[in-house]
Amino acid sequence: MTKRKIVLAFSGGLDTSYALVDFREKGWDVVTANIDTGGLHSGEAEVVTKRAEELGAVEHHVVDARSELYHRVITYAIKANYLRNGAYPSCVGAERLIQAEKVVQVALEVGADAVAHGSTGAGADHVRYDAVIRALAPHLEIVTPIRDERLTREGETDFLRSRGYEVSEKVKLYSINEGLIGTSIGGEETYGSWDYLPESAWTYTKSIDEAPDKGVELLLTFEKGEVVSAVTADGDALPSEHNYSILSALNTLGGEHGIGRGIHMGSTMVGNLARVGFEAPGMLILLAAHRELEKLVLSNRQQATKATLGNTYGDLLHEAVYFDPIMDDFRAFLDSSQRRVTGTVRVLLHKGNIVLLGSKSPYSLLDAATRSGVVYGHGSSLWTGEQARAFAHMYSVPGAIARAAANPAE
Amino acid sequence: MTKRKIVLAFSGGLDTSYALVDFREKGWDVVTANIDTGGLHSGEAEVVTKRAEELGAVEHHVVDARSELYHRVITYAIKANYLRNGAYPSCVGAERLIQAEKVVQVALEVGADAVAHGSTGAGADHVRYDAVIRALAPHLEIVTPIRDERLTREGETDFLRSRGYEVSEKVKLYSINEGLIGTSIGGEETYGSWDYLPESAWTYTKSIDEAPDKGVELLLTFEKGEVVSAVTADGDALPSEHNYSILSALNTLGGEHGIGRGIHMGSTMVGNLARVGFEAPGMLILLAAHRELEKLVLSNRQQATKATLGNTYGDLLHEAVYFDPIMDDFRAFLDSSQRRVTGTVRVLLHKGNIVLLGSKSPYSLLDAATRSGVVYGHGSSLWTGEQARAFAHMYSVPGAIARAAANPAE
Amino acid sequence: MTKRKIVLAFSGGLDTSYALVDFREKGWDVVTANIDTGGLHSGEAEVVTKRAEELGAVEHHVVDARSELYHRVITYAIKANYLRNGAYPSCVGAERLIQAEKVVQVALEVGADAVAHGSTGAGADHVRYDAVIRALAPHLEIVTPIRDERLTREGETDFLRSRGYEVSEKVKLYSINEGLIGTSIGGEETYGSWDYLPESAWTYTKSIDEAPDKGVELLLTFEKGEVVSAVTADGDALPSEHNYSILSALNTLGGEHGIGRGIHMGSTMVGNLARVGFEAPGMLILLAAHRELEKLVLSNRQQATKATLGNTYGDLLHEAVYFDPIMDDFRAFLDSSQRRVTGTVRVLLHKGNIVLLGSKSPYSLLDAATRSGVVYGHGSSLWTGEQARAFAHMYSVPGAIARAAANPAE
Amino acid sequence: MTKRKIVLAFSGGLDTSYALVDFREKGWDVVTANIDTGGLHSGEAEVVTKRAEELGAVEHHVVDARSELYHRVITYAIKANYLRNGAYPSCVGAERLIQAEKVVQVALEVGADAVAHGSTGAGADHVRYDAVIRALAPHLEIVTPIRDERLTREGETDFLRSRGYEVSEKVKLYSINEGLIGTSIGGEETYGSWDYLPESAWTYTKSIDEAPDKGVELLLTFEKGEVVSAVTADGDALPSEHNYSILSALNTLGGEHGIGRGIHMGSTMVGNLARVGFEAPGMLILLAAHRELEKLVLSNRQQATKATLGNTYGDLLHEAVYFDPIMDDFRAFLDSSQRRVTGTVRVLLHKGNIVLLGSKSPYSLLDAATRSGVVYGHGSSLWTGEQARAFAHMYSVPGAIARAAANPAE
Repeated sequence: MTKRKIVLAFSGGLDTSYALVDFREKGWDVVTANIDTGGLHSGEAEVVTKRAEELGAVEHHVVDARSELYHRVITYAIKANYLRNGAYPSCVGAERLIQAEKVVQVALEVGADAVAHGSTGAGADHVRYDAVIRALAPHLEIVTPIRDERLTREGETDFLRSRGYEVSEKVKLYSINEGLIGTSIGGEETYGSWDYLPESAWTYTKSIDEAPDKGVELLLTFEKGEVVSAVTADGDALPSEHNYSILSALNTLGGEHGIGRGIHMGSTMVGNLARVGFEAPGMLILLAAHRELEKLVLSNRQQATKATLGNTYGDLLHEAVYFDPIMDDFRAFLDSSQRRVTGTVRVLLHKGNIVLLGSKSPYSLLDAATRSGVVYGHGSSLWTGEQARAFAHMYSVPGAIARAAANPAE
Repeated sequence: MTKRKIVLAFSGGLDTSYALVDFREKGWDVVTANIDTGGLHSGEAEVVTKRAEELGAVEHHVVDARSELYHRVITYAIKANYLRNGAYPSCVGAERLIQAEKVVQVALEVGADAVAHGSTGAGADHVRYDAVIRALAPHLEIVTPIRDERLTREGETDFLRSRGYEVSEKVKLYSINEGLIGTSIGGEETYGSWDYLPESAWTYTKSIDEAPDKGVELLLTFEKGEVVSAVTADGDALPSEHNYSILSALNTLGGEHGIGRGIHMGSTMVGNLARVGFEAPGMLILLAAHRELEKLVLSNRQQATKATLGNTYGDLLHEAVYFDPIMDDFRAFLDSSQRRVTGTVRVLLHKGNIVLLGSKSPYSLLDAATRSGVVYGHGSSLWTGEQARAFAHMYSVPGAIARAAANPAE
Repeated sequence: MTKRKIVLAFSGGLDTSYALVDFREKGWDVVTANIDTGGLHSGEAEVVTKRAEELGAVEHHVVDARSELYHRVITYAIKANYLRNGAYPSCVGAERLIQAEKVVQVALEVGADAVAHGSTGAGADHVRYDAVIRALAPHLEIVTPIRDERLTREGETDFLRSRGYEVSEKVKLYSINEGLIGTSIGGEETYGSWDYLPESAWTYTKSIDEAPDKGVELLLTFEKGEVVSAVTADGDALPSEHNYSILSALNTLGGEHGIGRGIHMGSTMVGNLARVGFEAPGMLILLAAHRELEKLVLSNRQQATKATLGNTYGDLLHEAVYFDPIMDDFRAFLDSSQRRVTGTVRVLLHKGNIVLLGSKSPYSLLDAATRSGVVYGHGSSLWTGEQARAFAHMYSVPGAIARAAANPAE
Repeated sequence: MTKRKIVLAFSGGLDTSYALVDFREKGWDVVTANIDTGGLHSGEAEVVTKRAEELGAVEHHVVDARSELYHRVITYAIKANYLRNGAYPSCVGAERLIQAEKVVQVALEVGADAVAHGSTGAGADHVRYDAVIRALAPHLEIVTPIRDERLTREGETDFLRSRGYEVSEKVKLYSINEGLIGTSIGGEETYGSWDYLPESAWTYTKSIDEAPDKGVELLLTFEKGEVVSAVTADGDALPSEHNYSILSALNTLGGEHGIGRGIHMGSTMVGNLARVGFEAPGMLILLAAHRELEKLVLSNRQQATKATLGNTYGDLLHEAVYFDPIMDDFRAFLDSSQRRVTGTVRVLLHKGNIVLLGSKSPYSLLDAATRSGVVYGHGSSLWTGEQARAFAHMYSVPGAIARAAANPAE
């Protein structure tokens, strides 16, 4: 009789190491899948692969999902100007969805009977995983011991050691999650609302104090809402080998200038408030520059409608509402809105600040107004003084009638 | 026969000086009104009064509208978290409405036949004035020579000098408008979209470079959405004599730390795009702190709905939609939403950055969750692993059905 | 040792009869509570009371919640112009919330240890009950055998008969739920989407064919958005003894004229689509008349904003989001918006149609415009031809600039 | 020297007849253009052509714009479920935009120097015309004597008769405007808010009384949101020769059954309230059927978002905001949302009522739920009783925390 096969989303950490061995002992053939959404440092993939083999995986898959994450998720987050609660580039949530998709893909490829993930039941990641798996492959069993059994780190460590596997002694003060979009940092200070993360908790961004006294000026060029080049005022182009390369380079460069730190406080999918630190210089820079360019080329109504729809879009994605067909409709709207979001934005990165110096575009509404005769501050050949006066008169009609209606006896 | 009486909104500048004399020569009794919305420096009121007398006003009124501007406009802008286009505290627009109201009030008091203002027809201020005047006192004639006749500065200067009045030689490079909410700065660079204002154009804020190396930490306390005290970490309380005193003090303190500069690019009421620099440290600090506190005490739905309604409210006010009864409905909503926006926010002002360090409130949703058993990152006594699993299962139902519906043949 | 006490929401039907006896056998003191939200016909309360006694309840409470349901729920549904999916007055959902509140109230009064309800897990009512109970009295245990054990009607019948209790043989073809707001009707035809309910399924409304050839004209008068009188064109006033009397009378009168039938198709709280018939003449008439009056006295912006907020408000209530503080904010908005929704609407009820004949109000915007000089279709003394022309000119500016910007090479 | 050329939007009525002769006398070569948007009865085009020749037009163009009106405007109105103020299919407004476009097209073809239309300045049509002309051809002069000079019917009649032209004596009690979308009817009763139009004022729809006792059942089939066939239950297919044929046929058939009458009360573009009768059976039937089908195949979020966006889209179109690029974005959203709005709706037209009997679609969410195991009213194999209970538990968490936060002292 062939053994049943399970695909485990595997990071090499304690939880998924425990799960791998536990599953094997329960009779599964365990296939591990390590999905890279930007969180793997150089050499780490190999370490994870080795750990999977050591713990007895029958197969180990490494999937580089960065390009797809960028193309399918990040570009739309930027088109939508999305910041969760106006502040947070929603690092972890969207990555989980792509990870879950890739795990399902591996499971379908290897003909698995089940998939497993190591999320706890305390946060939202387990919901994201389950939502994707059940929609894409409802026939697959979902196995989640960490969530269901509420295991402790001590219990897992003992279990692994009793089987002869090494477990690192290192106790991490902060729970850190790295990815292309950003790094999230949870710990003592973020469990309450009053304290800020100490300098030691941040992973790669510099503090405002340590950032260099001289800022760096960048020219960011967008085509239809997507960044296509980033060049310093000195003419140095940031790498653009992969679609996500500029974002990665901006993470580094922005972090160097003290940009990108923040603490997000917002509701989880379950509905309780939570707080978490983050570092995301690249996203914050791209979002700021993109929005400035939109101000130059989009109508007021486009910007206002995008603000509302974009926020809803981002929140739904964060909340794993991934298969509602509204998501395609939102993307159709966003894509349409970006037809003319083409141009260049001048940005200064300086001591934690993203200063928007200027912008230009062939579709500039400011230039079009000037071509049409408007010179702000000096009057306009588009209309006469009498026309302006008549406009003010007509503009006052509804207010005057409203006031008359509200005061019938006057 | 008694002469007809006109009330002129009078700043003492070239346009309104010209208008005063012109009206007088045309046979009006001219009453001047100088409305202070925070733009008058020490001693300036006296200079304006003297100028009005010199040019022949029959009466001159000085109206201190700061407290009313703060109470009726600014507190709601903060409750609404309003920034025009996500960036600009809308300095000038709201002030014009209050100014127009006060001019009408003077006109009704002195029994005037007409009111006059010196706005040009190029921008939006003339529409704001007219909208208020016509709604509040439709019987008053509105006289606006600067708009209707498109006079030049040269012509006005010659006119006044030919009557023996002095006119200052000073040519201003930038058109500057000061007020409690902020200072707007227009000039060469802002007529296009590419250039940033030079250091010399800013009026009182320091650059990031010049800001002190050491930031200042503040404790800002709010009651029902309104700031009631501001104390530094060293225990120094900012002045709070008038309702607007903390805002004024934050303008000074924030400006000292390089905070508050920006360039707004947005649509005018006529519908053309325009760009203008601004300095508004106090509003930016209060808005940031207020919003952080809201994250601690408001539900997700409150925050999302407030974002949309608040933005609409602010835009309508900016666009002089002042008498639409929806404005009262919005304020009722905003007031209701602030019932529990009470607490203290820790803010660091440092080299252009407003860093939100932490917050606390008796109505903290984070504390309530903790009291109820949720400990983020550690699991929760509010629900079991099995309940979490079942929740994820149920949460996936709509997505799974949607996907099944979209693929009927599968 | 004292027995533990449980309060059971009791309708006298099979499910709750079973639960009562089952609880008793398991050692509870069972207190039954029958909450009247308009679904009790004359004499039914006594039958239910007798059944509770017969089955062994230690106490039986009858709570008339109609006035409170009207005041706290129905008036806001009308102020909000709420129809779920644009069609359905959301009969059952809101009633459940009030019922749950009342059950909790009884439980607190009698010092109960637990509350019980007979909802199944198939629909949304069980979620509504639990949401209210856990927010208001988190210490109370929630006991729900019908949901948890998925009992069958046969099993319940056998259980009761084996204890010597009579169970009616009547098998109901349709699941019917009556209340003040309306009556819902589910059955064979509504399980799919293609078939309409047969004539026999409707409970008290007449068909279009059977409705009288002559309609009835009504004058409905509202004060601040709430109906205060209903008089026929012949001068007969509908009863208004209780706050809900007019609604009840309109249910009867409207049903007589073939009004109020419909089939609602919409998403449940779980996320699957469901379909259910309903009869709700009174709500449909009041909603239509109220909205017509709003058109006469509210600004365009008020109506558009109310449409969105009101729909959200109603949906959240339907979905038992009852304790989110946004609900109070919505009600504050709605109350504010109704300040001038005072006046009379002429309505013709005729062969299934609600024809809106006309309306009047002291706050009429039409009258205010006429007083101000506007005569639609004839021109206006409020503006001249030249002003109209200038307005059209200025109105075209943004479009012309937008088109110029979109076609930079033209 | 060649004469200057003007294109006049020409209906053959008094205003445009006057304008034609007046222009000719002022030295213009007058080209007339009669744009058919569904308002021409059989033989009327010829009468208009003859009148243009008689009055001295140098060229007369007849443009059949019905297909384009249907394709570019009406299909999106239906996709958007648009009814102005929830009641009115916005007959006239959208037609004016297409008419203006066609007039500009003729003007560009014949190399005209100017365009002219006969709108008064009292309503909104003149703004619609100007907005389109100035955006599409800013170099064209706009000539509008009726608006600018506020001519009276008597003056125009005298002018024409003095030149020897006949003018009909017929005085119309009601101002009637016919088109594909609907017919608008203004007159004595609609100038106030209290009176309903008398039976004599309606043009082709039957009253409820006169409508046949037996209704007609229709099967309306849609593909991607557009109606493609209409067949009676007896198997008679309505004509579908042109894209607008079904709509036209439904106007006739619906009108026969007493459907389509209404009175619209809403704000004009200037901002005053106005009231106008309309007959639009076809649009009301298609909108009702389309929306019912959407309920079967769209997610809740799609429906709610469409309601808001669709309403905004329709209002903007009505208000001639035609060149704002947001309109393309809205259409992209609407088109995306209609991907699966394919299926058939059963509709009964009966005594003024549009009764939605049922619907079906390959993308039915009801069928998908059933396939997945949900049977409403009977429980579900998609989830267990325990899972339902856990879901209700988790669903209650945010409300319970919110209540705890609101009552910190409890």
